[in-house]
Amino acid sequence: MDSYLLDDQLRGFIREDLEHGDITTDAIFDDSATASVCLQAREGLVVAGMERVASRVFSLLGGSAVNFEDVMPDSARVEPGAILMRLNGSVRVLLRGERVALNLVQRLCAIATLTRSYVDAVQGLDVVITDTRKTTPGMRMLEKYAVRAGGGRNHRYSLSDGVLIKDNHIAACGSIRRAVEKVRQQVPHTIAIEVETDTLEQVEECLHCGVDIIMLDNMDNTLLRKAVSLINNRALVEASGGVNLQTVRGIAETGVNIISVGALTHSAGSCDIGLDWQDPAL
Amino acid sequence: MDSYLLDDQLRGFIREDLEHGDITTDAIFDDSATASVCLQAREGLVVAGMERVASRVFSLLGGSAVNFEDVMPDSARVEPGAILMRLNGSVRVLLRGERVALNLVQRLCAIATLTRSYVDAVQGLDVVITDTRKTTPGMRMLEKYAVRAGGGRNHRYSLSDGVLIKDNHIAACGSIRRAVEKVRQQVPHTIAIEVETDTLEQVEECLHCGVDIIMLDNMDNTLLRKAVSLINNRALVEASGGVNLQTVRGIAETGVNIISVGALTHSAGSCDIGLDWQDPAL
Amino acid sequence: MDSYLLDDQLRGFIREDLEHGDITTDAIFDDSATASVCLQAREGLVVAGMERVASRVFSLLGGSAVNFEDVMPDSARVEPGAILMRLNGSVRVLLRGERVALNLVQRLCAIATLTRSYVDAVQGLDVVITDTRKTTPGMRMLEKYAVRAGGGRNHRYSLSDGVLIKDNHIAACGSIRRAVEKVRQQVPHTIAIEVETDTLEQVEECLHCGVDIIMLDNMDNTLLRKAVSLINNRALVEASGGVNLQTVRGIAETGVNIISVGALTHSAGSCDIGLDWQDPAL
Amino acid sequence: MDSYLLDDQLRGFIREDLEHGDITTDAIFDDSATASVCLQAREGLVVAGMERVASRVFSLLGGSAVNFEDVMPDSARVEPGAILMRLNGSVRVLLRGERVALNLVQRLCAIATLTRSYVDAVQGLDVVITDTRKTTPGMRMLEKYAVRAGGGRNHRYSLSDGVLIKDNHIAACGSIRRAVEKVRQQVPHTIAIEVETDTLEQVEECLHCGVDIIMLDNMDNTLLRKAVSLINNRALVEASGGVNLQTVRGIAETGVNIISVGALTHSAGSCDIGLDWQDPAL
Amino acid sequence: MDSYLLDDQLRGFIREDLEHGDITTDAIFDDSATASVCLQAREGLVVAGMERVASRVFSLLGGSAVNFEDVMPDSARVEPGAILMRLNGSVRVLLRGERVALNLVQRLCAIATLTRSYVDAVQGLDVVITDTRKTTPGMRMLEKYAVRAGGGRNHRYSLSDGVLIKDNHIAACGSIRRAVEKVRQQVPHTIAIEVETDTLEQVEECLHCGVDIIMLDNMDNTLLRKAVSLINNRALVEASGGVNLQTVRGIAETGVNIISVGALTHSAGSCDIGLDWQDPAL
Amino acid sequence: MDSYLLDDQLRGFIREDLEHGDITTDAIFDDSATASVCLQAREGLVVAGMERVASRVFSLLGGSAVNFEDVMPDSARVEPGAILMRLNGSVRVLLRGERVALNLVQRLCAIATLTRSYVDAVQGLDVVITDTRKTTPGMRMLEKYAVRAGGGRNHRYSLSDGVLIKDNHIAACGSIRRAVEKVRQQVPHTIAIEVETDTLEQVEECLHCGVDIIMLDNMDNTLLRKAVSLINNRALVEASGGVNLQTVRGIAETGVNIISVGALTHSAGSCDIGLDWQDPAL
Repeated sequence: MDSYLLDDQLRGFIREDLEHGDITTDAIFDDSATASVCLQAREGLVVAGMERVASRVFSLLGGSAVNFEDVMPDSARVEPGAILMRLNGSVRVLLRGERVALNLVQRLCAIATLTRSYVDAVQGLDVVITDTRKTTPGMRMLEKYAVRAGGGRNHRYSLSDGVLIKDNHIAACGSIRRAVEKVRQQVPHTIAIEVETDTLEQVEECLHCGVDIIMLDNMDNTLLRKAVSLINNRALVEASGGVNLQTVRGIAETGVNIISVGALTHSAGSCDIGLDWQDPAL
Repeated sequence: MDSYLLDDQLRGFIREDLEHGDITTDAIFDDSATASVCLQAREGLVVAGMERVASRVFSLLGGSAVNFEDVMPDSARVEPGAILMRLNGSVRVLLRGERVALNLVQRLCAIATLTRSYVDAVQGLDVVITDTRKTTPGMRMLEKYAVRAGGGRNHRYSLSDGVLIKDNHIAACGSIRRAVEKVRQQVPHTIAIEVETDTLEQVEECLHCGVDIIMLDNMDNTLLRKAVSLINNRALVEASGGVNLQTVRGIAETGVNIISVGALTHSAGSCDIGLDWQDPAL
Repeated sequence: MDSYLLDDQLRGFIREDLEHGDITTDAIFDDSATASVCLQAREGLVVAGMERVASRVFSLLGGSAVNFEDVMPDSARVEPGAILMRLNGSVRVLLRGERVALNLVQRLCAIATLTRSYVDAVQGLDVVITDTRKTTPGMRMLEKYAVRAGGGRNHRYSLSDGVLIKDNHIAACGSIRRAVEKVRQQVPHTIAIEVETDTLEQVEECLHCGVDIIMLDNMDNTLLRKAVSLINNRALVEASGGVNLQTVRGIAETGVNIISVGALTHSAGSCDIGLDWQDPAL
Repeated sequence: MDSYLLDDQLRGFIREDLEHGDITTDAIFDDSATASVCLQAREGLVVAGMERVASRVFSLLGGSAVNFEDVMPDSARVEPGAILMRLNGSVRVLLRGERVALNLVQRLCAIATLTRSYVDAVQGLDVVITDTRKTTPGMRMLEKYAVRAGGGRNHRYSLSDGVLIKDNHIAACGSIRRAVEKVRQQVPHTIAIEVETDTLEQVEECLHCGVDIIMLDNMDNTLLRKAVSLINNRALVEASGGVNLQTVRGIAETGVNIISVGALTHSAGSCDIGLDWQDPAL
Repeated sequence: MDSYLLDDQLRGFIREDLEHGDITTDAIFDDSATASVCLQAREGLVVAGMERVASRVFSLLGGSAVNFEDVMPDSARVEPGAILMRLNGSVRVLLRGERVALNLVQRLCAIATLTRSYVDAVQGLDVVITDTRKTTPGMRMLEKYAVRAGGGRNHRYSLSDGVLIKDNHIAACGSIRRAVEKVRQQVPHTIAIEVETDTLEQVEECLHCGVDIIMLDNMDNTLLRKAVSLINNRALVEASGGVNLQTVRGIAETGVNIISVGALTHSAGSCDIGLDWQDPAL
Repeated sequence: MDSYLLDDQLRGFIREDLEHGDITTDAIFDDSATASVCLQAREGLVVAGMERVASRVFSLLGGSAVNFEDVMPDSARVEPGAILMRLNGSVRVLLRGERVALNLVQRLCAIATLTRSYVDAVQGLDVVITDTRKTTPGMRMLEKYAVRAGGGRNHRYSLSDGVLIKDNHIAACGSIRRAVEKVRQQVPHTIAIEVETDTLEQVEECLHCGVDIIMLDNMDNTLLRKAVSLINNRALVEASGGVNLQTVRGIAETGVNIISVGALTHSAGSCDIGLDWQDPAL
C-alpha cells in the first residue's frame, strides 16, 4: 500500500471527525502538553496497520509532534494484552487523532484476523484465499491491505483491472464464446479473463474459449470436484459462494486453486483495541 | 441526511470501484442496452438507504437513465424475499453502480436492523439508544443516518458539536470542576457539557458543577442505580460500556436516560441483499 | 483553531492571488534574494492571527524560507506603530504572500478590536458577548477565532451544531411546544435547544417546554427586564437585535446572560496594518 | 462573472454553513413543505448579485425546488423597503440557503453601494474609480463583480495578470529603468507595465522607459497636478493612497485617469437586507 | 471511456483556460447572443472525440445552451474539408469552450490517425498494435481512448493493472524465476505476468516459469523470429522498441502477437481542425 | 513557474500512473532497496524541467528518499549522451516516478528545443517568438515554462489576462471601433488590447482606436511589410499564421515585433531521454 496514496484518504477521515475543531481539547490543553499512551490489544488478533495507518494519522495531524515506539509489524499474531504501539507527544494531537486511528485499526486488525482464520483453515492445501469487491465504500485500499496482512490474497481491485464475465454479460451476448470474443477484442492483453459458471456445460464452454480463470459459483463440493477434474489445469479454478469457516476446508479439498470470500471484508466486525493513557506529563 | 452533502461522498465511492472504467461491461454492452433488476432482501431486515442512497448511486452515474419503482421506505421491517426496490434502465449504468450500491445498503440495513434490536429490547422503558463516534471512517453521515432509520438516536457527530470531558481531560485540570470551568469559558453556550465518570464521587462533583449530561462509564447495574438516584433528574444520565443485547434491558431498567452503544456501527456486519436481473431486454 | 484544518483554506486564498504566478517578482528576483520586513500596526488594535494565520501563509508558500520573530500574541492590545511580527527570508516568498497575509490580518484584527470594544462596554456585568452566523462566506473559522481573540464567545458554528427554533419553524408546527417536541425527538442530546421569542407569552411557553436557551429578539430594555425576571434562571437568556456600542451596556444591565452581535463579523471593516521593508539584502 | 466558475465557490460556502446538515429544519419540516419569501432592502442601496449569486445558492441546494420572481437587476438603485427578489418553493431549501445567500448579498450590495458613492463623487470628470487587490480572501471574483455593479472598474485581478513595480522591486534592481527592462524581457506583451512612484524624478524616469501606467502613490494634490502635467498623456496616470469620499473629487480634479480605492472592498461593511417569510403553506 | 469519469478532467481543462473569466467576450456579448459554428477537418484524418469530448466541453460550460448536429462518429476516416460537428447556440459558451475543445480534438484525432497508419501497415497479419504508458501526463484516459478509435489496442493502463518485470526487477531478485515467483505470490491472479527480455536465454527462462506475456525488447527481426519460434504459442509475444511506420510490417511478419508503439501517443502531434463561424445571429 | 502551484498538478499526474499502487515493484522491492540512476539525453536538445519538474516528481513521492546531483539547468543545450541529472535513493520511489518524470521532461525538452530553433532562425533581428494558447490541456503552465526555457516568450496565458478581439467579436459589434470601445469600458487598464486583422483597412481602423497590439493574421510578407510601415511604431505588431521554420525568418524581416507560433506547443513531439540504472545496491 503506497503511503503516498493513503494520505489523502486519511486526511478526509480526520476532517470527518474534527469538523471545525476539537472544542473540548482546545479548551483544556495548550500546545505544550504532552503524554505517553499505548495501543493495546484487548483480545488476541492479527496485526494490520499499526505502522502505516495508525501512526500516519497522528503524523498527518501533528508532523513530528508525536513519536512512535514498539510498533508491532503487520501480520504479527498477538495475545490479549499485547502492546501494539507506544505513542509519545502532544496531547492535542493524540486526542484529535485517537478516535480515527482506533476506528481504523480495530477494523483492519479484524479483517486480518478473520482472513488468518480462513488461511489457517486450509493449511497444507494448495489453495489461495482471496477477498472480493465487497469492501466498505471508501476503504478498499485499506481493507485489501489488511487481507494481505492476514495472509490472504487480493482479487481484482476494481472494475478496471480485471474481467469477470457474469450471467448477464453472457445472456446479452448469447453465449460464453461470444462474450469472451468481444472482451478479448477490447481489453488489454495484460488482464486475465475470468468467467462465472453455474454448470459443467458452461465450464466446458469456457475451456473451449481458452478462458484464463473459471469461477465456479455456488456449486456443491461434488460438482466442484467434477469441474476441477474437467478443467484439469487448463485454467485457474476459483470457488465462490457459500464459503464460511465451516465449509472452507471442504471446498479447498475439491482441488480448486482460489477461494474468494466476501466475508473477509463485509463481515469482519471490529477488534477490541484500546488506547491507554500513561503517566501524563501535562 | 442532506442529499446535497451526500453526493460528493457517493461520487468518491463510485470512482473507487470504477477507476478508469468498467472494462468488461464496456466491451459487451453499448449505451442502448436496458434491463430490469430488483434489490431483494435475502434475510429479514430493517430498511435504510434505498431511496436516498442506493437510487442516488445510479442517478449520479446515469442521470435519468435508470428509473426506480417500489422503493421501500426507511425504517420498514421486511421479511426475507421482500423486494426493496425495482430498477429499470441502462445496463451500463446498472452494472457500473451495482457493487457500490449493494456494499452501501447491505451495511446501512445491517446497522438499522441491529439498532432496531436494541430499541426493541428496551421497549416500554423511557430510555434512548444512541450511537457513538465508533463509525467506519468516511461513512459517519451514512451510518448515523442508518441508526436513525433503526429507531436509534445520534450522539454527538464529531469533536466539534459536543463536549465530552474524559479522565485525561480531568487529570490535566486537576478536578472535574476546573475542567468544566475551562470548557464553559470557551465553548458555545449552545452545546451541552458532558462528563465521563467512574465513581459516585465524580458524579457528585459533576452535579456541583451543573454538568448537563453525566456519562456513567462501565458501571454495574447496582452502581448505575445509585448514580441515577443520586443525580435525581438534575442532569441527563448516559450509560456507556459493556452494553450488548443481553445486558441492555437490565441497564435500561436502572433508570438511565441514554444508553450509547458502539456496536451499532462497529459490529453490525452486513445484511444479505441481492440484485436480481429480470427479463433483460438487451 | 486547528492549524490542520486551516491550511487547505489558506492554500485556496494564496491560489486566488497567485493564479499562475507572480509575474513581476519572478522577472526581477531570483530564489536567492532575501529581505527583512515587519508587520506594523498603523492604528491601535487588538491582535488576532499573527502567529497562526499570517506566518502560516508564508510557511505554506516557502517552507522554512522565511523566519518569524517578535510575533505578537493573540488578544494583545497594541498602540499605533507597534511591530506585530518581523519576517526574514526569501523575497519571492515575502512578495507572493504579502497581500494575502495583510488582507487576512487586517480583517481579523478589526474583528478582534471591535469585539473588544463590546466586551469592554459591558465590563463588570455578568454577560457574554457572542458572534452570530453573519460571517463572511468562506471565513467562518477564522472570523470566529478572531472573536475569541477579542474576548468574545462563539454562538453556534453552523446549522449542524446548534438548534435555533425561529418563528417560521414555530408557525410550521403550530406551537413552540410542538416544535420543541419534534426537535427533541431528533437531535442529539448533546445539543442545547434555543428558541427565538418576541413576546412574554412565547417566553412563558418556552419555560413550560424546558427550553435550554431563550432568545429575546428585538425586545426593548423594559421587556427584556420583564423576560429576565420571568425566566428567573430557568433557562439561559440571550438578547439579540438592535445591539450596538451605544445600546449594549443598557441591554446587558437588564440581566440577560448572552448578547449576540452580528456586527462583530459583518461590520468590523479592516484595520490599518502595513508591511514595511527593511534593509533589503538582495 | 462566469457562473461556471462561481458554482464551486458557492458550494464551499454552503458546506461551511451546513456542515453535516440543518438539524433544526430536518426535525421540523419534511421535503414537501413550501413557502414564499422575499429579500427586502432595509436601507437604500445599489443592487449586486441577486440574479447570479443569491438565486444560485438556492438552485445549487435544491435544483428547481425554488423559483424566483421580480429579481432586481445588478446596478439598480433602490429605496428602503424595495423587494429585491421573491422566492417560492421548498422550505428546506429556503432555510438551508438563507444565511449564506444573505451573507453574500449584504456584502456585495454594500460594495456596489460604496463604489457608487465614489463614482458619483467624481461625476462629470474624466476619471475612473477602480478597486485593488485588498479583497476578502476567497471572495475576489465576487467582490470585483460587485465593484463593476456599482459603476467602478477593476484593477488587476491577481499577481498574474498585471505588472506593478513597487519600491522594493526598484531597490532590488538599482533603478526604475533596470526593473522595467527586466520585466519587459519576461512578461507577455499583452500586459501593461505599471510603476509605483513617490516623486517627480521617478515619474520622469518612468517616462523615459516608456512605462504604460504611472501610479502616483500618496502624493498631495499639488504634486499630483505637477505629475499629470509632466506626464502629459504619455502614460496612464493612477492616483493611489489617502483616497476617501471627502478627498476623491479633489484628487480627480488634478487630471489623473484612474483612482484606485482599497476601501471599496475592505471597508464596505454590510447592507441591511432581510429575508421575510410570507403566507407559509406548510 | 466513461463520461462520468471524464467530466472532472474536462472541468479542470476549462478552468485552466478560463481562469477568472473570458474578459474579451464578456465585454462584447451578452447572454442572449447565439451563433452557428462548425468544426472542420483541414486535413484528412481519423475521427476521435467529437461526440464524447468536444461536445461535452460545451455542455459542461453551458448546459443545453449549445446544440450539436452532424457529429462525426469515432473511427470515421474523413477527407480534408469534412464537417466534423455543427454547433448552434450561445456565443459566450462557444467562445469560452472553443480553444479547449480544439486543443483536445486536434490531439485526439492525431493519435487516432497515427494509430490507424500503424494498424493499416500490418493489415492482413495476425498482430495487434498497442499503445504504452508514454502518454501526456493528465491525458491518459483520453489518449488511450483515441488509440482505440484508431483501431489500436491498449496496453496496461497504469502501474496497478498490469505486471511488467523489467531488467532492474530481475537484477534485484537474481533471476527471472525468483522475480516471477515473488510477483506471483503477491499480485491478483486476475492480472497476467509479463517479462521484458533481451536474449533468447531470458526467453527460455520465462517459458520455464510459465510467464503469460514475453516482451522482446529491441531485438532485430532475425532474433524476433527465433524467439517466436522458441516460444511456440506457450506465451503471448510482444515486440517493443525501434518500431516506426517503416519497420512495423517487418516486425509483424516475424509472427509476434503484439507490437507496442510509444509513438502513438508521444509523437502524434496535432491535426489541423478549425472552428468556423457561420451566419452569426447576434 | 511557481513550484507552489506546480505540486498539485504533479500529484495528479502521479496518481494517474499509480492508481492504487505499483504492484510489480511492491512485490519485488522493499522500502530499503536503493539505486543510482541517471537521466540521459539520447539526442541533442535544449533542457527544460530537470530541476523544477523531474526532481520534484520524485520528491513528492518520497520526500528526501531520493537525492539529485549534476542537475542540468534550464536552457542548456546538450549533445546526445549528455547526463541531465543523477538520482540516488529508494528504488521504490525511483520506479514509481520514472514514467511520469520521463513523460514530462521528454515533452518539455522537446518544446524548449523547438522553440530554440525558431529563436535561432530569427537571430540578429529585433523580433520576439511567442507561444499561443494551443497547449496540451492540463499542461499550460509547464508548456509555457518550457517555451521560456527555449528562449521564447509567452503570449497571454488564458482568456483572463489578455484581450484579443477577433473577427466574430468585430462582426458582433459592427466595427473594430465599437468593439474596442466596449472592451475598453470593461477590462482593467492593466491589460493591453490586441485586435486581429486581415486587411490594411482593418489595421488603419485599429490605429484610429489606439489599439495596443495589432495582430496581422495570415498575411503574406508583402502585406506584412506594408502593415508594418503603416503602423509605424504606433502599436506593437504581431504576425500570426503560416509560421514554420522555413518561413519564420522571412516573416521576421518584414519588421514585425512579435511572431506567435502555435507549433511550439502543439507540434513539438517528444525528445528521446532515457533513465539508465547504474550499480543497483538492492
